[in-house]
Amino acid sequence: MDWKIALDTVWVLVAAMLVFFMNLGFALVESGFARAKNTVNIISKNFVVFAVATLAFLIVGWGLMYGDGNGFMGLKGLFFIGGADNSPAVGEAYSGVYSALNWTGVPLLAKFFFQLVFAGTAATIVSGAVAERIKYVSFIVFSAILVAFIYPIVGHWIWGGGWLAQLGFWDFAGSTVVHSVGAWAALAGVLVLGPRIGKYGKDGSVRAIPGHNMTSAMTGCLILWFGWFGFNPGSTMAADPEAISRIIVTTNVAAAAGALAATAIAWWLLGKPDIGMTINGALAGLVGITASCAFVSVESSLIIGAIAGAMVVYGVLALDKFKLDDPVGAIAVHGMGGIFGTLAVGLFAQDKFMPGTTGDGLLFGGGAGLLMNQLIGIAAVGAAVFAASLAIWYAIKLTIGVRVSEEEEMEGLDIGEHGNRAYPDFVMTETIA
Amino acid sequence: MDWKIALDTVWVLVAAMLVFFMNLGFALVESGFARAKNTVNIISKNFVVFAVATLAFLIVGWGLMYGDGNGFMGLKGLFFIGGADNSPAVGEAYSGVYSALNWTGVPLLAKFFFQLVFAGTAATIVSGAVAERIKYVSFIVFSAILVAFIYPIVGHWIWGGGWLAQLGFWDFAGSTVVHSVGAWAALAGVLVLGPRIGKYGKDGSVRAIPGHNMTSAMTGCLILWFGWFGFNPGSTMAADPEAISRIIVTTNVAAAAGALAATAIAWWLLGKPDIGMTINGALAGLVGITASCAFVSVESSLIIGAIAGAMVVYGVLALDKFKLDDPVGAIAVHGMGGIFGTLAVGLFAQDKFMPGTTGDGLLFGGGAGLLMNQLIGIAAVGAAVFAASLAIWYAIKLTIGVRVSEEEEMEGLDIGEHGNRAYPDFVMTETIA
Amino acid sequence: MDWKIALDTVWVLVAAMLVFFMNLGFALVESGFARAKNTVNIISKNFVVFAVATLAFLIVGWGLMYGDGNGFMGLKGLFFIGGADNSPAVGEAYSGVYSALNWTGVPLLAKFFFQLVFAGTAATIVSGAVAERIKYVSFIVFSAILVAFIYPIVGHWIWGGGWLAQLGFWDFAGSTVVHSVGAWAALAGVLVLGPRIGKYGKDGSVRAIPGHNMTSAMTGCLILWFGWFGFNPGSTMAADPEAISRIIVTTNVAAAAGALAATAIAWWLLGKPDIGMTINGALAGLVGITASCAFVSVESSLIIGAIAGAMVVYGVLALDKFKLDDPVGAIAVHGMGGIFGTLAVGLFAQDKFMPGTTGDGLLFGGGAGLLMNQLIGIAAVGAAVFAASLAIWYAIKLTIGVRVSEEEEMEGLDIGEHGNRAYPDFVMTETIA
Repeated sequence: MDWKIALDTVWVLVAAMLVFFMNLGFALVESGFARAKNTVNIISKNFVVFAVATLAFLIVGWGLMYGDGNGFMGLKGLFFIGGADNSPAVGEAYSGVYSALNWTGVPLLAKFFFQLVFAGTAATIVSGAVAERIKYVSFIVFSAILVAFIYPIVGHWIWGGGWLAQLGFWDFAGSTVVHSVGAWAALAGVLVLGPRIGKYGKDGSVRAIPGHNMTSAMTGCLILWFGWFGFNPGSTMAADPEAISRIIVTTNVAAAAGALAATAIAWWLLGKPDIGMTINGALAGLVGITASCAFVSVESSLIIGAIAGAMVVYGVLALDKFKLDDPVGAIAVHGMGGIFGTLAVGLFAQDKFMPGTTGDGLLFGGGAGLLMNQLIGIAAVGAAVFAASLAIWYAIKLTIGVRVSEEEEMEGLDIGEHGNRAYPDFVMTETIA
Repeated sequence: MDWKIALDTVWVLVAAMLVFFMNLGFALVESGFARAKNTVNIISKNFVVFAVATLAFLIVGWGLMYGDGNGFMGLKGLFFIGGADNSPAVGEAYSGVYSALNWTGVPLLAKFFFQLVFAGTAATIVSGAVAERIKYVSFIVFSAILVAFIYPIVGHWIWGGGWLAQLGFWDFAGSTVVHSVGAWAALAGVLVLGPRIGKYGKDGSVRAIPGHNMTSAMTGCLILWFGWFGFNPGSTMAADPEAISRIIVTTNVAAAAGALAATAIAWWLLGKPDIGMTINGALAGLVGITASCAFVSVESSLIIGAIAGAMVVYGVLALDKFKLDDPVGAIAVHGMGGIFGTLAVGLFAQDKFMPGTTGDGLLFGGGAGLLMNQLIGIAAVGAAVFAASLAIWYAIKLTIGVRVSEEEEMEGLDIGEHGNRAYPDFVMTETIA
Repeated sequence: MDWKIALDTVWVLVAAMLVFFMNLGFALVESGFARAKNTVNIISKNFVVFAVATLAFLIVGWGLMYGDGNGFMGLKGLFFIGGADNSPAVGEAYSGVYSALNWTGVPLLAKFFFQLVFAGTAATIVSGAVAERIKYVSFIVFSAILVAFIYPIVGHWIWGGGWLAQLGFWDFAGSTVVHSVGAWAALAGVLVLGPRIGKYGKDGSVRAIPGHNMTSAMTGCLILWFGWFGFNPGSTMAADPEAISRIIVTTNVAAAAGALAATAIAWWLLGKPDIGMTINGALAGLVGITASCAFVSVESSLIIGAIAGAMVVYGVLALDKFKLDDPVGAIAVHGMGGIFGTLAVGLFAQDKFMPGTTGDGLLFGGGAGLLMNQLIGIAAVGAAVFAASLAIWYAIKLTIGVRVSEEEEMEGLDIGEHGNRAYPDFVMTETIA
C-alpha cells in the first residue's frame, strides 16, 4: 500500500469531519442570535438540512458537479456516485468520469464525503437569514433543490472544470462556491419572505431584536472557527505539509484580525464592543480568507481578515437600511465576506505560494487580469444563483407557501411548526413581537 | 520506523478521541431530554461514569475482554494491562497474551485506549434510561461492575475471539457489543427502578414529560454524529483508505436517512415533526449501521438507516405501552437499533467489501446462515446481559438502595444528591412532578 | 516527499486544532461558574483573548520565545516569524534562527501554530480568575502584554533552550510553562483587583456565589479534557506511535483519577458530591499530569492525578481563607496543579520511557537532583511571572483603571461593558450582589 494515499485519505476525512461539525456551529450561532420561541425550529432546520443535503448530493448533486460534461454542468455518472472511477489513481493514470478531481489521490468515497460537507454548508447558510418566519417544509424543499441542482451546477463551473475554471477564476476553498452561493440564495429568500413582524417601523425605524442566548452564539462561532481548520487546510485534499501549515496560519490570522477589527469598529461606532459584531467579525474574516488562504502571505491574511471584519459591521447596518431582514447577519458575513474574499485573490495572491496557479495579484505586480476574472466569476455566480433561487422561492410561495401565519410568528414557530418548546422549565419574558 | 504503524496509530488515537467526545454528546442529549431540576445529576452521572469506566477497564475489564483465555472470558494479563505483549507486531509475528487484537498494528496502549472509550460508551447509554430517579452512588456502583465485568466478558465472546466470534457472528463496530449491551443493562435498571412519579396515570394514561433544553439535546446529537465518525471508521483500527472512506459514507448516509425517516413518520403519526423524534431517528440510524458499516453498500446503508429511524418512533411509543419509563429513549435507540443493526449484517452484507469476513447476507444471495448466527448472538448477549444486570440492580436495591426518596424526586435530584442547582440565576416554572 | 514530515505535520496540526478548541472549553467553564449577568463579558474575554494572542505572538512573542538568543530571551527573527529557517530540516541539517525547535521535523508555520495555541491557553487561564469585575479593555491590554512578552520570555527559559533547559528542568507539555504562568498572572490580577462585592463578609464569612449554568461548565470541562489529547500527546510534535499512545493513556487516567478523587473528597468534606469540585478535580488531574505525561507509567499517572484532584478541593477552600477571590478556581487548578505536576516529574519520572531526558525521579531511585531542578524552575518562573504581572496590573490600574464601577458590577458587566444581555428572553432571579 502507498503511504501517500493512506495519509491523504486520513487528512481529507478528518478535515471533512471538522466541516461536518460546522453544522453544529451554524445551528448555535443562528439559534443564539434568534429568539427563544423559535429555537426548536431553527436548530431543527440546521439539523435536518444536512440530512437532506446528504441525500440530495448523493442522489444527483455530486454527479452534476463533478461528473465529466461540458463547461456548464456534469453529464456523466450522475446518480448515486455511479460512474466509472479508478480513484485513488491520479492525473494521467486516472480513468473514470469524475476527472475534475483527478488531482487528489484519495478513494472516490473520500472525495464524495469531503464535497458533501461543503454542499451542506452552503445550504446551512441560508437557514439563518430566513429564520423566524419561514415554514419548515418550505425550507426543506428549497434546501433539497439548492443542493441537488443550484449548488452543484454553479460549483461545476469552478471546481468541476467548467467555464470559470477554464477562464482562470480561482477560489481555493469556497468564498464564492460555498459562501456566496449560500448568501445569494439567502438574499432571494429574504426578499420573497419579507421582514419579521415588528422589525421595521412605518416611520423608517429599525427595531433591534436581540438574540436569546449569547452562550450559544459564541459556542457556535468557536465551533465554526475550529471547523474552518478542516474547511481551508483540508481543501488541499492532500497532506502537503507546507501548504496545510501555511493555510492553517493564514486562516487563523484572518479570523483573529476580523474579530478584532469588527470589535474595534463596533466599539467606535456604537460606543460598546457588541458581542454580535465580534462574532460576525471573526466569521467574516474566515469567509474572507477562504478563497485566497493558499495563495497569500501571513501578512496579507492579516489585512484581508481585518478588512472583512470591518466591512461586516457596516454591512449589517446597511442591510437594515434596505429593510433586508437577516436575523443573524448571514448575508453580510457570507455574501459581502465571500465577494471581498474572492476579490482578495486578485489583489493579494503571490505566485510563489502555489506556483502555476493564480500567478501574482494586482498588489504584487501581477496586473489586473486575475482581478477581472474574479469579478466575472463573482457576477456570474451571483446572477445565476440569485435568479434561480428567486424563481424557486416564488414557486414555493405560490404552491405550498413560504411564510407561517402572523399568529404563529407571534407565538413562535416552535409550537406552530413542531409542537415543542425549547425551554419549558424556564419562565420566559414576553419576547418582542 | 514504519510509516504504517505510525499512521495507523494516529488514526486509531484520533478516532478514539472522537469516541471519547461522545461522552459530551450523551450528557447533552440525556440532560436536554430531562427536566432542569435533574440536570446537575444527569451531567454528573455522564461525566463521572467515564472516569469510573477508565479505572474499571484499566484494572480488570481490559484483561477479561482481550486477554487470551477460553471462549467465555480472558484469563491472562488480567490486571493493569499487565500481560506480555510485543505490539505493534501483527499476525504470526505477534507474541503476547492479547492475541485477539493481533490483527491491528498499533502499540498496546493505543489498543487499550480505543477499547476503553468503547467500554465507556456502553456505560453511558445506561445513564439516560435510569435518569431522574436513580441514586448517584448506585449508578456509580452499577457502572463500575458493568465495565469491569459484564461488558468485557460479553465483549470477549465477540471481539475477544470467544465463542460467538468462532461461530461466525459479525458486529463490526458494536451494534451489539456496545449499544445492545448498554440497552439491556438499561432495561434491567428501568424494571428495577420503576417509572418516574407521575409518568403513568392509574387510568393507563401516559403523561409527556418534556425535556428542559432542546438546544442541549440537538447539540448532543450532533456531537454524537460527529463522534460516530471515530466510532465506525475507527473500528478498522488501521488507516485503510478504501475501508475508512466507505465506512464514513455508510455511517453518514444511515444517520441522514434515520433522521429523515423518523421526522417523516413522526410528522405523519403525531401531526408535527417533533424534534425529539428527529434526534432519536438520527441516533437510531447511527446505531443501526454500526454493526454493518464496513460490509454494506451505500445504497444499503440508506435503507438500513431509514428502517432504524422509522422503528425508533414506534419503539418509543411502544415502550410507554409497557410502562417502561425511559426518559430519553435510550432503550429504543440503542436496544432496538442495536438488534436491528446486528440483523442487518445478515441481510445486507456483501462479501466484496471485506472479502473473507461476513460473506453475503440473505438479500444478496448468501442464504440464511449468517442471519441465524446474528440471531444467536443477539439472543445470547441479550439474555446474559439482562440477567446479570437484573441481578446486580437487585443486589444494589437490597443493599445501598437504588432510588431516591419521593421528596427528593419531586424537588429534583440536583439539590438532593449534589447540593447544586443547574441554573440558579433563572426563574423556573413549577416543573411537572 | 518524506512520509515522516507529512505525517508529523498532520499530527501536530490536528493536535493544535484540539488545543485551539480548548478556548471554547475555558469560555464555557468560566462563564458557567459565574453569574448570568456577566456571561457576555466572560465569553467575550475568552474569545477575544485568542485573537489578541494570535497577533501578539505573531508580531513579537514567537521570536522572543524561540528565536536564538541567550539564556534569558530570544534575540533573532523577532518579528512576524521573519527569521531564516529551513524547516522541516532537523538536527544538524537545520539552519536558521529558531534552533530550539530543530528537533521536530515539521514546517515552520506548523511549529508556530502549535506554539501559538499554547500561548493562547496561558492567557485564557487568567480570564476566569479576574472575572465578574475587570474592565474589558484592561483585560485585553494585560493579555496582549502577557502573550507578547511575559509568556514567551519565561517560556524561552524552558522550551526555547534557555537557562532552565540547560539546568535540566523538565516540563513536557507545560504544567509550568503554560498553566503556572497563567495562574501566577491571575494571582497578581486577583490581588490588584480585590474580591467581588459581597464575596467576603466583614465578619470573616465567605459567601458562596453559585455559577449560573452547570450545563455550560460541564460541557466546557469535557471539551478541555478532549482538547488535552492534543495538548499532551501533541507535545511530542511527532507522530511517534509508542509515545503518543502512552501519553494519551497517562493523560486520560490522571483526569479520571482527579475527577474521582475530588468527588470523593468533596463528598466526604462537604457532605455531597459538588459538581464544581468534580469538574475542577478532572482539570487538576489534567494540569497535574501535563509536565510528566511522557515520563511516567500508567500506574504513576493514576497516583499523580488522584493527588492533584484531592489537592484542588483543599486549594479552592484555602484561597477563600486568604480572601483571594477566584470565581472559577483557576488559581487552584492551574497554579497548585501546575506546581504539583512539575514536582511530579522529579518524583515519578522513569528514564526508560524517554531515555536520555529526565532520568529517574526520586521515587524510582534517581535521587533528588531532578526534584531540585524542578523546584528551582517553579520558584524562578513563579517569582518572575508574579512580579512582572503585578507591575503591569498596577500600571494598568494607574492609567486606564482595572475595575468596573460598583454600580456596573452590581448590574452586571454585560450591560456596562457590552450593551448586551446574554439571555434576554429569560426571566432572571435577582442575582446575588
